[in-house]
Amino acid sequence: MLRARVIQSIWSTKKIDSIPSGAFLEVEVEPGGTRLVAFDVLGSGVGEAVLVTTGSVAAAWLPGDTPPIDALIIGSIDEERT
Amino acid sequence: MLRARVIQSIWSTKKIDSIPSGAFLEVEVEPGGTRLVAFDVLGSGVGEAVLVTTGSVAAAWLPGDTPPIDALIIGSIDEERT
Amino acid sequence: MLRARVIQSIWSTKKIDSIPSGAFLEVEVEPGGTRLVAFDVLGSGVGEAVLVTTGSVAAAWLPGDTPPIDALIIGSIDEERT
Amino acid sequence: MLRARVIQSIWSTKKIDSIPSGAFLEVEVEPGGTRLVAFDVLGSGVGEAVLVTTGSVAAAWLPGDTPPIDALIIGSIDEERT
Amino acid sequence: MLRARVIQSIWSTKKIDSIPSGAFLEVEVEPGGTRLVAFDVLGSGVGEAVLVTTGSVAAAWLPGDTPPIDALIIGSIDEERT
Repeated sequence: MLRARVIQSIWSTKKIDSIPSGAFLEVEVEPGGTRLVAFDVLGSGVGEAVLVTTGSVAAAWLPGDTPPIDALIIGSIDEERT
Repeated sequence: MLRARVIQSIWSTKKIDSIPSGAFLEVEVEPGGTRLVAFDVLGSGVGEAVLVTTGSVAAAWLPGDTPPIDALIIGSIDEERT
Repeated sequence: MLRARVIQSIWSTKKIDSIPSGAFLEVEVEPGGTRLVAFDVLGSGVGEAVLVTTGSVAAAWLPGDTPPIDALIIGSIDEERT
Repeated sequence: MLRARVIQSIWSTKKIDSIPSGAFLEVEVEPGGTRLVAFDVLGSGVGEAVLVTTGSVAAAWLPGDTPPIDALIIGSIDEERT
Repeated sequence: MLRARVIQSIWSTKKIDSIPSGAFLEVEVEPGGTRLVAFDVLGSGVGEAVLVTTGSVAAAWLPGDTPPIDALIIGSIDEERT
Protein backbone atom coordinates (compact mmCIF):
# COMPACT_ATOMS: atom_id res chain seq x y z
CA MET A 1 0.00 0.00 0.00
CA LEU A 2 1.01 3.62 -0.42
CA ARG A 3 0.77 6.37 2.19
CA ALA A 4 -0.74 9.39 0.46
CA ARG A 5 -2.61 12.64 0.94
CA VAL A 6 -5.80 13.66 -0.89
CA ILE A 7 -5.21 16.61 -3.27
CA GLN A 8 -8.45 17.10 -5.18
CA SER A 9 -11.48 15.44 -6.70
CA ILE A 10 -11.40 14.39 -10.35
CA TRP A 11 -14.68 14.60 -12.26
CA SER A 12 -15.48 12.55 -15.31
CA THR A 13 -18.84 12.86 -17.03
CA LYS A 14 -17.91 10.93 -20.18
CA LYS A 15 -16.76 7.57 -18.88
CA ILE A 16 -17.14 3.88 -19.53
CA ASP A 17 -19.92 1.99 -17.83
CA SER A 18 -19.49 -0.34 -14.84
CA ILE A 19 -17.85 2.25 -12.57
CA PRO A 20 -19.40 1.64 -9.12
CA SER A 21 -20.56 4.40 -6.73
CA GLY A 22 -17.71 6.43 -5.27
CA ALA A 23 -15.33 9.26 -6.05
CA PHE A 24 -12.10 9.66 -8.00
CA LEU A 25 -9.56 11.45 -5.81
CA GLU A 26 -6.12 12.60 -6.88
CA VAL A 27 -3.62 11.75 -4.13
CA GLU A 28 0.07 12.50 -3.62
CA VAL A 29 2.29 9.70 -2.33
CA GLU A 30 4.29 10.52 0.83
CA PRO A 31 7.22 10.56 0.80
CA GLY A 32 8.06 10.90 -2.88
CA GLY A 33 5.44 13.17 -4.35
CA THR A 34 4.20 10.86 -7.10
CA ARG A 35 0.54 11.47 -7.93
CA LEU A 36 -2.14 8.99 -8.85
CA VAL A 37 -5.94 8.86 -8.92
CA ALA A 38 -7.57 6.50 -6.42
CA PHE A 39 -11.17 5.41 -6.08
CA ASP A 40 -12.80 6.29 -2.75
CA VAL A 41 -15.82 4.85 -1.00
CA LEU A 42 -15.02 6.25 2.48
CA GLY A 43 -15.85 9.90 1.88
CA SER A 44 -12.22 10.98 2.27
CA GLY A 45 -11.60 14.74 2.19
CA VAL A 46 -8.95 17.00 0.70
CA GLY A 47 -5.85 17.03 2.93
CA GLU A 48 -6.67 13.67 4.57
CA ALA A 49 -3.87 11.11 4.95
CA VAL A 50 -4.93 7.80 3.43
CA LEU A 51 -3.74 4.30 2.62
CA VAL A 52 -4.01 3.37 -1.07
CA THR A 53 -3.92 -0.16 -2.46
CA THR A 54 -3.12 -0.63 -6.14
CA GLY A 55 -3.58 -3.27 -8.80
CA SER A 56 -6.18 -5.94 -9.38
CA VAL A 57 -6.97 -6.38 -5.67
CA ALA A 58 -8.50 -2.88 -5.67
CA ALA A 59 -11.02 -3.98 -8.28
CA ALA A 60 -11.64 -7.35 -6.68
CA TRP A 61 -12.87 -5.71 -3.46
CA LEU A 62 -15.39 -3.49 -5.26
CA PRO A 63 -18.91 -4.72 -6.06
CA GLY A 64 -19.76 -5.78 -9.60
CA ASP A 65 -17.88 -7.74 -12.17
CA THR A 66 -14.26 -6.51 -11.77
CA PRO A 67 -14.65 -2.80 -12.50
CA PRO A 68 -11.62 -1.24 -14.28
CA ILE A 69 -10.32 0.41 -11.09
CA ASP A 70 -6.63 -0.05 -10.22
CA ALA A 71 -6.29 2.05 -7.03
CA LEU A 72 -8.53 2.17 -3.95
CA ILE A 73 -8.38 4.13 -0.70
CA ILE A 74 -8.69 1.42 1.96
CA GLY A 75 -8.36 3.56 5.08
CA SER A 76 -7.72 6.90 6.69
CA ILE A 77 -4.42 7.11 8.58
CA ASP A 78 -4.62 8.08 12.28
CA GLU A 79 -2.02 10.88 12.08
CA GLU A 80 -1.72 11.49 15.82
CA ARG A 81 -0.71 7.85 16.44
CA THR A 82 1.48 7.05 13.44
CA MET B 1 -5.49 5.39 -12.21
CA LEU B 2 -3.28 7.90 -13.96
CA ARG B 3 -4.24 11.39 -15.10
CA ALA B 4 -2.92 11.79 -18.63
CA ARG B 5 -3.27 13.70 -21.89
CA VAL B 6 -3.64 12.13 -25.34
CA ILE B 7 -0.60 12.76 -27.57
CA GLN B 8 -1.15 10.74 -30.74
CA SER B 9 -2.62 7.62 -32.26
CA ILE B 10 -0.45 4.55 -32.66
CA TRP B 11 -1.12 2.34 -35.69
CA SER B 12 -0.27 -1.32 -35.85
CA THR B 13 -1.11 -3.35 -38.94
CA LYS B 14 0.94 -6.42 -38.03
CA LYS B 15 -0.41 -7.44 -34.65
CA ILE B 16 -1.54 -10.50 -32.75
CA ASP B 17 -5.13 -11.60 -32.94
CA SER B 18 -7.76 -11.05 -30.22
CA ILE B 19 -7.34 -7.27 -30.04
CA PRO B 20 -10.92 -5.92 -29.66
CA SER B 21 -12.30 -2.87 -31.52
CA GLY B 22 -10.78 0.41 -30.38
CA ALA B 23 -7.70 2.61 -30.77
CA PHE B 24 -4.19 2.66 -29.37
CA LEU B 25 -3.45 6.15 -28.07
CA GLU B 26 -0.13 7.36 -26.71
CA VAL B 27 -0.74 9.43 -23.58
CA GLU B 28 1.51 11.50 -21.33
CA VAL B 29 1.02 11.17 -17.57
CA GLU B 30 0.41 14.47 -15.71
CA PRO B 31 2.31 15.46 -13.70
CA GLY B 32 5.46 13.54 -14.47
CA GLY B 33 5.65 13.25 -18.23
CA THR B 34 5.92 9.46 -18.44
CA ARG B 35 4.41 8.12 -21.66
CA LEU B 36 2.45 4.95 -22.24
CA VAL B 37 0.04 3.56 -24.82
CA ALA B 38 -3.56 3.06 -23.67
CA PHE B 39 -6.44 1.35 -25.39
CA ASP B 40 -9.44 3.60 -26.05
CA VAL B 41 -13.08 2.77 -26.71
CA LEU B 42 -14.45 6.27 -25.97
CA GLY B 43 -13.25 8.07 -29.09
CA SER B 44 -10.84 10.27 -27.13
CA GLY B 45 -9.05 12.95 -29.14
CA VAL B 46 -5.52 14.39 -29.21
CA GLY B 47 -5.10 16.89 -26.36
CA GLU B 48 -7.95 15.45 -24.27
CA ALA B 49 -7.36 14.87 -20.54
CA VAL B 50 -8.18 11.29 -19.63
CA LEU B 51 -8.13 8.78 -16.78
CA VAL B 52 -6.10 5.64 -17.52
CA THR B 53 -6.35 2.37 -15.61
CA THR B 54 -3.47 -0.11 -15.88
CA GLY B 55 -2.87 -3.79 -15.33
CA SER B 56 -5.09 -6.84 -15.60
CA VAL B 57 -8.29 -4.96 -14.73
CA ALA B 58 -7.99 -3.10 -18.05
CA ALA B 59 -8.20 -6.40 -19.92
CA ALA B 60 -10.91 -7.82 -17.68
CA TRP B 61 -13.28 -5.01 -18.61
CA LEU B 62 -12.86 -5.54 -22.36
CA PRO B 63 -14.98 -8.04 -24.28
CA GLY B 64 -13.47 -11.37 -25.27
CA ASP B 65 -11.22 -13.78 -23.49
CA THR B 66 -8.76 -11.46 -21.64
CA PRO B 67 -7.17 -9.58 -24.53
CA PRO B 68 -3.48 -8.68 -23.96
CA ILE B 69 -4.26 -5.04 -23.13
CA ASP B 70 -2.70 -3.56 -19.97
CA ALA B 71 -3.91 0.07 -20.09
CA LEU B 72 -7.40 1.44 -20.80
CA ILE B 73 -8.84 4.94 -20.95
CA ILE B 74 -11.84 4.76 -18.60
CA GLY B 75 -13.00 8.38 -18.79
CA SER B 76 -12.50 11.91 -20.00
CA ILE B 77 -11.64 14.39 -17.23
CA ASP B 78 -13.96 17.40 -16.87
CA GLU B 79 -11.21 20.03 -16.91
CA GLU B 80 -13.37 23.00 -15.98
CA ARG B 81 -14.46 21.30 -12.73
CA THR B 82 -11.30 19.50 -11.57
CA MET C 1 10.24 -9.53 -3.59
CA LEU C 2 11.77 -6.45 -2.02
CA ARG C 3 14.36 -6.36 0.77
CA ALA C 4 13.19 -3.74 3.26
CA ARG C 5 13.43 -2.53 6.83
CA VAL C 6 10.48 -1.80 9.12
CA ILE C 7 10.17 1.93 9.93
CA GLN C 8 6.93 2.32 11.89
CA SER C 9 3.40 1.10 12.42
CA ILE C 10 0.55 2.78 10.54
CA TRP C 11 -2.78 2.98 12.34
CA SER C 12 -6.11 3.26 10.60
CA THR C 13 -9.33 3.37 12.60
CA LYS C 14 -11.58 4.43 9.71
CA LYS C 15 -11.06 1.73 7.11
CA ILE C 16 -13.00 -0.48 4.74
CA ASP C 17 -14.20 -3.85 5.92
CA SER C 18 -12.60 -7.20 5.02
CA ILE C 19 -9.12 -6.31 6.28
CA PRO C 20 -7.87 -9.51 8.02
CA SER C 21 -6.02 -9.60 11.38
CA GLY C 22 -2.53 -8.13 11.19
CA ALA C 23 -0.62 -4.86 11.19
CA PHE C 24 0.19 -2.19 8.63
CA LEU C 25 3.92 -1.49 8.74
CA GLU C 26 5.73 1.22 6.80
CA VAL C 27 8.95 -0.23 5.37
CA GLU C 28 11.90 1.27 3.49
CA VAL C 29 13.25 -0.67 0.52
CA GLU C 30 17.01 -1.43 0.66
CA PRO C 31 18.87 -0.32 -1.34
CA GLY C 32 16.93 2.56 -2.83
CA GLY C 33 15.00 4.10 0.03
CA THR C 34 11.52 3.88 -1.50
CA ARG C 35 8.82 3.51 1.16
CA LEU C 36 5.66 1.47 1.09
CA VAL C 37 3.18 0.07 3.59
CA ALA C 38 3.11 -3.73 3.93
CA PHE C 39 0.72 -5.97 5.78
CA ASP C 40 2.31 -8.10 8.51
CA VAL C 41 1.15 -11.28 10.19
CA LEU C 42 4.56 -12.30 11.61
CA GLY C 43 4.82 -9.73 14.40
CA SER C 44 7.75 -7.94 12.74
CA GLY C 45 9.31 -5.14 14.77
CA VAL C 46 10.71 -1.69 13.99
CA GLY C 47 14.23 -2.01 12.58
CA GLU C 48 13.76 -5.61 11.42
CA ALA C 49 14.94 -6.60 7.92
CA VAL C 50 12.11 -8.23 6.01
CA LEU C 51 11.13 -9.67 2.63
CA VAL C 52 8.07 -8.01 1.08
CA THR C 53 5.98 -9.47 -1.74
CA THR C 54 3.74 -7.12 -3.75
CA GLY C 55 0.71 -7.35 -5.98
CA SER C 56 -2.21 -9.72 -6.12
CA VAL C 57 -0.26 -12.68 -4.74
CA ALA C 58 -0.07 -10.87 -1.38
CA ALA C 59 -3.86 -10.85 -1.16
CA ALA C 60 -4.24 -14.39 -2.47
CA TRP C 61 -2.22 -15.77 0.45
CA LEU C 62 -4.35 -14.03 3.10
CA PRO C 63 -7.54 -15.61 4.44
CA GLY C 64 -10.89 -14.36 3.25
CA ASP C 65 -12.16 -13.35 -0.15
CA THR C 66 -9.18 -11.48 -1.70
CA PRO C 67 -8.72 -8.64 0.81
CA PRO C 68 -7.52 -5.35 -0.79
CA ILE C 69 -3.91 -5.82 0.38
CA ASP C 70 -1.13 -5.37 -2.20
CA ALA C 71 2.01 -5.88 -0.07
CA LEU C 72 2.79 -8.57 2.50
CA ILE C 73 5.81 -9.30 4.69
CA ILE C 74 6.58 -12.96 3.94
CA GLY C 75 9.70 -13.39 6.07
CA SER C 76 12.32 -11.93 8.34
CA ILE C 77 15.82 -11.84 6.80
CA ASP C 78 18.61 -13.63 8.73
CA GLU C 79 21.03 -10.71 8.74
CA GLU C 80 24.02 -12.59 10.10
CA ARG C 81 23.89 -15.09 7.22
CA THR C 82 22.94 -12.95 4.23
CA MET D 1 1.34 -0.81 -23.31
CA LEU D 2 4.84 0.47 -23.91
CA ARG D 3 6.27 1.76 -27.18
CA ALA D 4 9.68 0.16 -27.61
CA ARG D 5 12.36 -0.83 -30.09
CA VAL D 6 13.93 -4.27 -30.42
CA ILE D 7 17.62 -4.31 -29.39
CA GLN D 8 18.73 -7.94 -29.48
CA SER D 9 17.72 -11.55 -28.95
CA ILE D 10 18.27 -13.17 -25.56
CA TRP D 11 19.14 -16.87 -25.57
CA SER D 12 18.47 -19.18 -22.65
CA THR D 13 19.32 -22.86 -22.89
CA LYS D 14 18.89 -23.65 -19.19
CA LYS D 15 15.34 -22.56 -18.43
CA ILE D 16 12.25 -23.76 -16.66
CA ASP D 17 9.72 -25.82 -18.53
CA SER D 18 6.38 -24.52 -19.87
CA ILE D 19 7.86 -21.71 -21.96
CA PRO D 20 5.83 -21.74 -25.22
CA SER D 21 7.32 -21.36 -28.72
CA GLY D 22 8.69 -17.88 -29.40
CA ALA D 23 11.68 -15.64 -28.81
CA PHE D 24 12.95 -13.52 -25.95
CA LEU D 25 13.78 -10.05 -27.28
CA GLU D 26 15.39 -7.26 -25.32
CA VAL D 27 13.60 -3.99 -26.09
CA GLU D 28 14.22 -0.37 -25.16
CA VAL D 29 11.22 1.72 -24.13
CA GLU D 30 10.74 4.97 -26.11
CA PRO D 31 10.92 7.59 -24.80
CA GLY D 32 12.76 6.82 -21.58
CA GLY D 33 15.34 4.21 -22.44
CA THR D 34 14.32 1.61 -19.87
CA ARG D 35 15.07 -1.91 -21.07
CA LEU D 36 13.09 -5.09 -20.57
CA VAL D 37 12.85 -8.51 -22.16
CA ALA D 38 9.61 -9.28 -23.99
CA PHE D 39 8.33 -12.52 -25.47
CA ASP D 40 7.71 -12.44 -29.20
CA VAL D 41 5.55 -14.62 -31.41
CA LEU D 42 5.43 -12.23 -34.39
CA GLY D 43 8.97 -12.68 -35.67
CA SER D 44 9.94 -9.10 -34.81
CA GLY D 45 13.42 -8.03 -35.90
CA VAL D 46 16.21 -5.93 -34.40
CA GLY D 47 15.42 -2.22 -34.84
CA GLU D 48 11.67 -2.76 -35.26
CA ALA D 49 9.28 -0.49 -33.31
CA VAL D 50 6.85 -2.59 -31.28
CA LEU D 51 4.03 -2.39 -28.75
CA VAL D 52 4.70 -4.33 -25.53
CA THR D 53 2.05 -5.37 -23.01
CA THR D 54 3.17 -6.27 -19.48
CA GLY D 55 1.85 -8.21 -16.52
CA SER D 56 -0.45 -11.18 -16.19
CA VAL D 57 -2.40 -10.39 -19.37
CA ALA D 58 0.73 -11.23 -21.38
CA ALA D 59 0.70 -14.77 -19.98
CA ALA D 60 -3.06 -15.14 -20.27
CA TRP D 61 -2.92 -14.65 -24.04
CA LEU D 62 -0.27 -17.32 -24.56
CA PRO D 63 -1.18 -20.99 -25.02
CA GLY D 64 -0.73 -23.40 -22.14
CA ASP D 65 -1.38 -23.10 -18.45
CA THR D 66 -0.28 -19.50 -17.65
CA PRO D 67 3.38 -19.60 -18.66
CA PRO D 68 5.64 -17.39 -16.47
CA ILE D 69 5.88 -14.63 -19.10
CA ASP D 70 5.24 -11.04 -17.98
CA ALA D 71 5.85 -9.07 -21.21
CA LEU D 72 4.62 -9.76 -24.75
CA ILE D 73 5.06 -7.96 -28.06
CA ILE D 74 1.49 -7.52 -29.32
CA GLY D 75 2.19 -5.60 -32.50
CA SER D 76 4.60 -3.86 -34.80
CA ILE D 77 4.13 -0.07 -34.95
CA ASP D 78 3.49 1.44 -38.40
CA GLU D 79 6.20 4.10 -38.20
CA GLU D 80 5.23 6.01 -41.33
CA ARG D 81 1.72 6.62 -39.97
CA THR D 82 2.27 7.23 -36.26
CA MET E 1 11.06 -10.03 -17.97
CA LEU E 2 14.15 -8.41 -16.52
CA ARG E 3 17.76 -9.22 -17.38
CA ALA E 4 19.63 -9.46 -14.08
CA ARG E 5 22.68 -10.86 -12.35
CA VAL E 6 22.66 -12.88 -9.12
CA ILE E 7 24.27 -11.00 -6.21
CA GLN E 8 23.74 -13.14 -3.13
CA SER E 9 21.47 -15.57 -1.33
CA ILE E 10 18.90 -14.25 1.14
CA TRP E 11 18.12 -16.47 4.11
CA SER E 12 14.87 -16.35 6.06
CA THR E 13 14.26 -18.70 8.95
CA LYS E 14 11.16 -16.94 10.29
CA LYS E 15 8.79 -16.90 7.36
CA ILE E 16 5.20 -17.56 6.50
CA ASP E 17 4.13 -21.03 5.47
CA SER E 18 3.40 -22.15 1.90
CA ILE E 19 6.78 -21.12 0.48
CA PRO E 20 7.73 -23.96 -1.92
CA SER E 21 11.21 -25.50 -2.21
CA GLY E 22 13.79 -23.16 -3.70
CA ALA E 23 16.08 -20.24 -2.87
CA PHE E 24 15.68 -16.52 -2.46
CA LEU E 25 18.36 -14.76 -4.54
CA GLU E 26 19.03 -11.05 -4.61
CA VAL E 27 19.59 -9.95 -8.22
CA GLU E 28 20.63 -6.68 -9.83
CA VAL E 29 18.78 -5.59 -12.95
CA GLU E 30 20.99 -4.86 -16.00
CA PRO E 31 21.15 -2.17 -17.14
CA GLY E 32 19.83 0.05 -14.39
CA GLY E 33 21.11 -1.42 -11.17
CA THR E 34 17.77 -1.84 -9.40
CA ARG E 35 17.81 -4.76 -6.98
CA LEU E 36 15.09 -7.22 -6.15
CA VAL E 37 14.80 -10.67 -4.60
CA ALA E 38 13.72 -13.46 -6.93
CA PHE E 39 12.77 -17.04 -6.19
CA ASP E 40 14.97 -19.66 -7.84
CA VAL E 41 14.35 -23.31 -8.61
CA LEU E 42 17.17 -23.71 -11.17
CA GLY E 43 20.13 -23.67 -8.80
CA SER E 44 21.44 -20.36 -10.16
CA GLY E 45 24.77 -19.20 -8.76
CA VAL E 46 26.24 -15.87 -7.70
CA GLY E 47 27.38 -13.92 -10.78
CA GLU E 48 25.09 -15.79 -13.18
CA ALA E 49 23.06 -13.77 -15.72
CA VAL E 50 19.38 -14.66 -15.44
CA LEU E 51 15.92 -13.80 -16.75
CA VAL E 52 13.44 -12.76 -14.03
CA THR E 53 9.67 -12.68 -14.44
CA THR E 54 7.62 -10.61 -11.99
CA GLY E 55 4.06 -10.40 -10.74
CA SER E 56 1.33 -12.96 -10.32
CA VAL E 57 2.56 -15.16 -13.19
CA ALA E 58 5.62 -16.02 -11.08
CA ALA E 59 3.39 -17.51 -8.39
CA ALA E 60 1.07 -19.19 -10.87
CA TRP E 61 3.91 -21.28 -12.27
CA LEU E 62 4.99 -22.57 -8.84
CA PRO E 63 3.42 -25.65 -7.28
CA GLY E 64 0.87 -25.23 -4.53
CA ASP E 65 -1.98 -22.82 -4.04
CA THR E 66 -0.54 -19.49 -5.34
CA PRO E 67 2.43 -19.01 -3.00
CA PRO E 68 3.15 -15.33 -2.16
CA ILE E 69 6.09 -15.11 -4.58
CA ASP E 70 6.20 -12.16 -7.00
CA ALA E 71 9.51 -12.75 -8.83
CA LEU E 72 10.93 -15.94 -10.35
CA ILE E 73 14.11 -16.78 -12.21
CA ILE E 74 12.87 -18.48 -15.39
CA GLY E 75 16.20 -19.06 -17.14
CA SER E 76 19.92 -18.58 -17.30
CA ILE E 77 21.09 -16.28 -20.10
CA ASP E 78 23.60 -17.73 -22.60
CA GLU E 79 26.12 -14.91 -22.36
CA GLU E 80 28.35 -16.00 -25.22
CA ARG E 81 25.41 -15.86 -27.65
CA THR E 82 23.43 -12.81 -26.51
